[in-house]
Amino acid sequence: MARDEIGFSHPDEETLSLEAIFHALSDPYRLRIVQALAASAAPMNCGDLSFGRPKSSMSHHFRILRAAGVLHTTSQGVEHMNSLRRAALDRRFPGLMAAILGETGHPAAAPAARGLAPA
Amino acid sequence: MARDEIGFSHPDEETLSLEAIFHALSDPYRLRIVQALAASAAPMNCGDLSFGRPKSSMSHHFRILRAAGVLHTTSQGVEHMNSLRRAALDRRFPGLMAAILGETGHPAAAPAARGLAPA
Repeated sequence: MARDEIGFSHPDEETLSLEAIFHALSDPYRLRIVQALAASAAPMNCGDLSFGRPKSSMSHHFRILRAAGVLHTTSQGVEHMNSLRRAALDRRFPGLMAAILGETGHPAAAPAARGLAPA
Repeated sequence: MARDEIGFSHPDEETLSLEAIFHALSDPYRLRIVQALAASAAPMNCGDLSFGRPKSSMSHHFRILRAAGVLHTTSQGVEHMNSLRRAALDRRFPGLMAAILGETGHPAAAPAARGLAPA
């Protein structure tokens, strides 16, 4: 368990579990955060990933994604910057994120965005 | 939504969603059911997939897996026989089940069995 200077904790790669990852991705907003981060060339701050939802609600979602080892958060000044732990996930569960994100040649990820508020 | 003669209902393939599948697989017993079915050459009855847990508890798990479109249940006499909806899942989300089941050359699925009662 690695903890950075402002208290974000991230599970070690070898402790990542499918159950925790699936729980994290079972919510449409959390899945949407993951899709947005996967599509981004750079880390994104929490505000850019709020999809018009209340900050407290999204903080809960970020906490669950972090606890499952799906994303990594660091502070840059007053901002919290998030990125996918893609390399760790790919090493631990090869092919999983590619399939989730629809990188295997299909629009698998698209349904997650249906029925949600515009970003 | 297809419903068979004894009332099991199964969602149509085109309505399967990643969120529902992930919710279904976020429980270690449900993940273990899926792993057992994937390793079996034939459908399995509920008793052979109970892992020593109470019938009522496992019925709940089977219901969630069925509702997510992960498995299909039919009655054969007094038995309920279960099988993975692998073909439908593979068409809808290519590569997903292979990655979940560790078919991409890694022991991804193994951690799910840790800490559970022996089958």
